[in-house]
Amino acid sequence: MEQPKKIKLSIVGAGNVAFNLSRIFTEKGIKPFQVLARNVKHHNDFKPFATKIITSAEELEDCEVLILAINDDEVTQFASGLTLKDTLIVHTSGTLDGDAAKSKNNIYGVFYPLQTFSKTHTPDFSEIPIFIQASDNQSLLFLKQLAKMISKEVHLSDDRTRNLLHVSAVFVSNFSHALYAIAEDFLVKESLSFKYLHPLIKETAIKATSTNLTHSLTGPAKRNDQKTIKKHLELLLNHPEEKIIYEQLTAFILNKYHPKK
Amino acid sequence: MEQPKKIKLSIVGAGNVAFNLSRIFTEKGIKPFQVLARNVKHHNDFKPFATKIITSAEELEDCEVLILAINDDEVTQFASGLTLKDTLIVHTSGTLDGDAAKSKNNIYGVFYPLQTFSKTHTPDFSEIPIFIQASDNQSLLFLKQLAKMISKEVHLSDDRTRNLLHVSAVFVSNFSHALYAIAEDFLVKESLSFKYLHPLIKETAIKATSTNLTHSLTGPAKRNDQKTIKKHLELLLNHPEEKIIYEQLTAFILNKYHPKK
Repeated sequence: MEQPKKIKLSIVGAGNVAFNLSRIFTEKGIKPFQVLARNVKHHNDFKPFATKIITSAEELEDCEVLILAINDDEVTQFASGLTLKDTLIVHTSGTLDGDAAKSKNNIYGVFYPLQTFSKTHTPDFSEIPIFIQASDNQSLLFLKQLAKMISKEVHLSDDRTRNLLHVSAVFVSNFSHALYAIAEDFLVKESLSFKYLHPLIKETAIKATSTNLTHSLTGPAKRNDQKTIKKHLELLLNHPEEKIIYEQLTAFILNKYHPKK
Repeated sequence: MEQPKKIKLSIVGAGNVAFNLSRIFTEKGIKPFQVLARNVKHHNDFKPFATKIITSAEELEDCEVLILAINDDEVTQFASGLTLKDTLIVHTSGTLDGDAAKSKNNIYGVFYPLQTFSKTHTPDFSEIPIFIQASDNQSLLFLKQLAKMISKEVHLSDDRTRNLLHVSAVFVSNFSHALYAIAEDFLVKESLSFKYLHPLIKETAIKATSTNLTHSLTGPAKRNDQKTIKKHLELLLNHPEEKIIYEQLTAFILNKYHPKK
């Protein structure tokens, strides 16, 4: 990682991405110049991580890079309304097109950190892959330098690559999370503690980063253990939604590992 | 955790559970007296973790506890064929009935560690919940003492509790693993590295052990972001199996967080 340089950086947004970027840049000696948080209830969160907290786009001043960490469906309209002269404007979305943060000045890009963020837990930023794109070579080099200040994993990207990674991220993060939530709901309804599963969840994630996953899958569906599957479906009889997911994922695994001839 | 005591313990099986139990008991000063591994190709693995490695049930000698870490569908038949006199015989299954390891001597139980095991990675055993059941009080107290030598999380159980935990474990472990495998396959087919997702997988698991999961879910389905969902389905057009899983889990999440009135 490179030494911090005097970079004038501002951030728009008050959510988890805006918060984590403000925090890590501050830690790296690049405290955001302005953070635009429209809802004042978030201002306290950002106090340690912003020189100035503002509430409206009109207050935004020119800087080197403005990072839009706002909802996907707001980015295009927000950017197109900006009248900053020399500011590189980037979005942080895995889905939006590379030119979604284009404003009148025609200097834009993407700064996509592939991670799930929350305000209560600080991830190890140096491991987080950051995918960058830009309208011009100079902006791209600048983004590369900026990203390298917070991560070892900086990659030039294109829309398709970023979108493919984002859909994969939905599988491993949002969908896994949904499965965890299903198990939590189920156990709570059965008066059992979800904490019993914590070590298993962590170990499963660790295994996933060190083995061939298709090969290392275990469990009743992988073994085509119909007796256990039947027993599990009986236990899920009073939990119809959970039962459907169990059936669908089991069918998927059976079909993959034990295809009917 | 208590001090190691002179306990005469033997293990049947050569898979991941047998291996990890042999290793942790050896570490705790209770090297298994006999390990029965029918296939000699596994004998080398067990050399450091067994006083004697044998290949047939006839060679089994009486001991204090015999742990059956074999396939579910072999347990009942294997146990019922044993003629050991005073040995407590336990199985390690989340699914089988509490008396599945019953032999002629009528002393049996369950020793179920709720974790996913592999031979290449050593989990922190002290955190792994172990659920125990037994045919009689004396055996139960003995199992409790034994389990406490390797884990802080020892719980008396019954069949229903253990089965409910096992079906939940399928959701958070086998099914999550299957989702990781889907993402890995998908990225490999698209010539991208699955390694980009490693930090996300680990962070998602960490988040799952520290927040209310129904509340903390994120992603396009949770936001009812139809534009992104449509884009993702287009990217999955040439991956029909992955597409089905995406649609099913997205429908589940939409139905949960945005139910139709």
